[in-house]
Amino acid sequence: MSAIRIGIVGYGNLGRGVEKSIRQNPDMELVAVFTRRDPGAVQASVPVVSLQEVESYTDKVDVMILCGGSATDLPEQGPELARLFHTVDSFDTHARIPEYFEAVNGAAQASGHVSVISTGWDPGLFSLNRLLFEAVLPQGAEYTFWGRGVSQGHSDAIRRVEGVKNGVQYTIPSEEAVAAVRSGDQPQLSTRDKHLRECFVVAEEGADKARIEAEIKNMPNYFSDYETIVNFISEEELKTNHSAMPHGGYVLRSGVTGEGTTQLMEFSLKLGSNPEFTASVLVAYARAAHKLAARGEAGARTVFDIPFGLLSPKSPEQLRKEML
Amino acid sequence: MSAIRIGIVGYGNLGRGVEKSIRQNPDMELVAVFTRRDPGAVQASVPVVSLQEVESYTDKVDVMILCGGSATDLPEQGPELARLFHTVDSFDTHARIPEYFEAVNGAAQASGHVSVISTGWDPGLFSLNRLLFEAVLPQGAEYTFWGRGVSQGHSDAIRRVEGVKNGVQYTIPSEEAVAAVRSGDQPQLSTRDKHLRECFVVAEEGADKARIEAEIKNMPNYFSDYETIVNFISEEELKTNHSAMPHGGYVLRSGVTGEGTTQLMEFSLKLGSNPEFTASVLVAYARAAHKLAARGEAGARTVFDIPFGLLSPKSPEQLRKEML
Repeated sequence: MSAIRIGIVGYGNLGRGVEKSIRQNPDMELVAVFTRRDPGAVQASVPVVSLQEVESYTDKVDVMILCGGSATDLPEQGPELARLFHTVDSFDTHARIPEYFEAVNGAAQASGHVSVISTGWDPGLFSLNRLLFEAVLPQGAEYTFWGRGVSQGHSDAIRRVEGVKNGVQYTIPSEEAVAAVRSGDQPQLSTRDKHLRECFVVAEEGADKARIEAEIKNMPNYFSDYETIVNFISEEELKTNHSAMPHGGYVLRSGVTGEGTTQLMEFSLKLGSNPEFTASVLVAYARAAHKLAARGEAGARTVFDIPFGLLSPKSPEQLRKEML
Repeated sequence: MSAIRIGIVGYGNLGRGVEKSIRQNPDMELVAVFTRRDPGAVQASVPVVSLQEVESYTDKVDVMILCGGSATDLPEQGPELARLFHTVDSFDTHARIPEYFEAVNGAAQASGHVSVISTGWDPGLFSLNRLLFEAVLPQGAEYTFWGRGVSQGHSDAIRRVEGVKNGVQYTIPSEEAVAAVRSGDQPQLSTRDKHLRECFVVAEEGADKARIEAEIKNMPNYFSDYETIVNFISEEELKTNHSAMPHGGYVLRSGVTGEGTTQLMEFSLKLGSNPEFTASVLVAYARAAHKLAARGEAGARTVFDIPFGLLSPKSPEQLRKEML
């Protein structure tokens, strides 16, 4: 069987993660990276091609993995590229998913392509577990915790404070809150009960650190409602210890069956690199998109529509024998 | 929409668990319990019918949930009932799943029924996670831990020791082994490294407890390779504290992406009642079987073939809006 030919659109952290993931999957082959930048200025392990020329690749790429951002790239590229290719993306603006689904579905159905939207880990694997847990334990309470991981929005907020040269913010699940859920109780927990915020701040020479700390801790919306820890460190330390992009989190459901029997379901991720992991999920769903297309299916799909068997390179017989 | 009409075949712990689970799912309705015993001797919340009369229910039951054992009941009942009904079962003899699949698939395809086999949590939800984890992190190692939960086979072995009146054995995951995996290492662990065994034993009046303890701890295959703890308790204490059927476990995968980035995925269950939880999984898959049948599908299916969206009573639109 020939390898599944993959194209990458957008070559940031996520696109580079897909490039690395393809190397771990011998049934796949990376054909080209497509970029809106000057292709000559981008270095990759495969040819880098201007996005304007993507149409000449319809016979050369089986599945296109879209690695652009959800704010402006995907709303435009998703439907456009679904007209030309089978696609997979990680559109993650939860509130706009229904409208994005409709736009991509229209394009994919009209052109006979399969487009898997909004995959990754949240939306994606976390969503799958929320659905599964609720279906199995309809009587219960669900809890999602995020972290320990960098929040880009909160890191930006720190960097806007006067006297701050650089900074990174970690969202951290509260161990107490996780333990309370795991105990089988069904505690009422707000987002702020569930998480704390830890900041690593590089102050400008001579800046008033006490004022910076107070300003961060009292910042409405971002920090004032949370337990916030502020650490001052050097620019060098920030580069050395806080350049990685770890993330993760927990989905828990505490439910009850029969006459008050407690049942607990939990899914968790502890990721050394958020973009590399998200990329690995996209690559597995690219395999599924390829198999769905081979069945003659067309239209937009989410993780909820795709059986896990299609994610694996193994045949249904092999899966039943080895993995059930 | 009218409720999905469910029948239960076999009314042991699992069958009673299904009866309770149906009460938590307003889109379902329990029609009858079918038994090989004298129906007059069985009490349930719905009519109890002799299994010999099951054929007269083909118009009254949408999905039959088979709650018999895997050793002798299901190999016979699975294919037989797949000729008459859409079915769901928890066939759990891992090594014989391929052959069981073929038998049920033949009957279900010939008669135009959908039969979901081997669901529950292992095989079932654990299998799904093993597959997902391997597809997302092809480079890595997988670990399944079982417990804390009662092992029927080991409990039986204890009760065969001379001077033992009654006894229960719990399989317990080694906290050290779980911690070693969670650390991101990929330790080599045998089953015995991963689990300990704790026994609660009621000795007969005047029996030599030291001899009993030694005999249990040195029993080949069952205990001699494990760290085994033996506690002597009263019959009363056994009834009070060890009649529940808790179970659970962990599926973990420690993987690597890119240039040595550690990624950890984990799924775990902590179950107050193993049969009630397994029953709840069967009921969710009964809903999926009903939806697959409504699409005109026929044949045997495993959890690997069924998209999670079909497990939920919610519509695809609602799922995309609320749960993605």
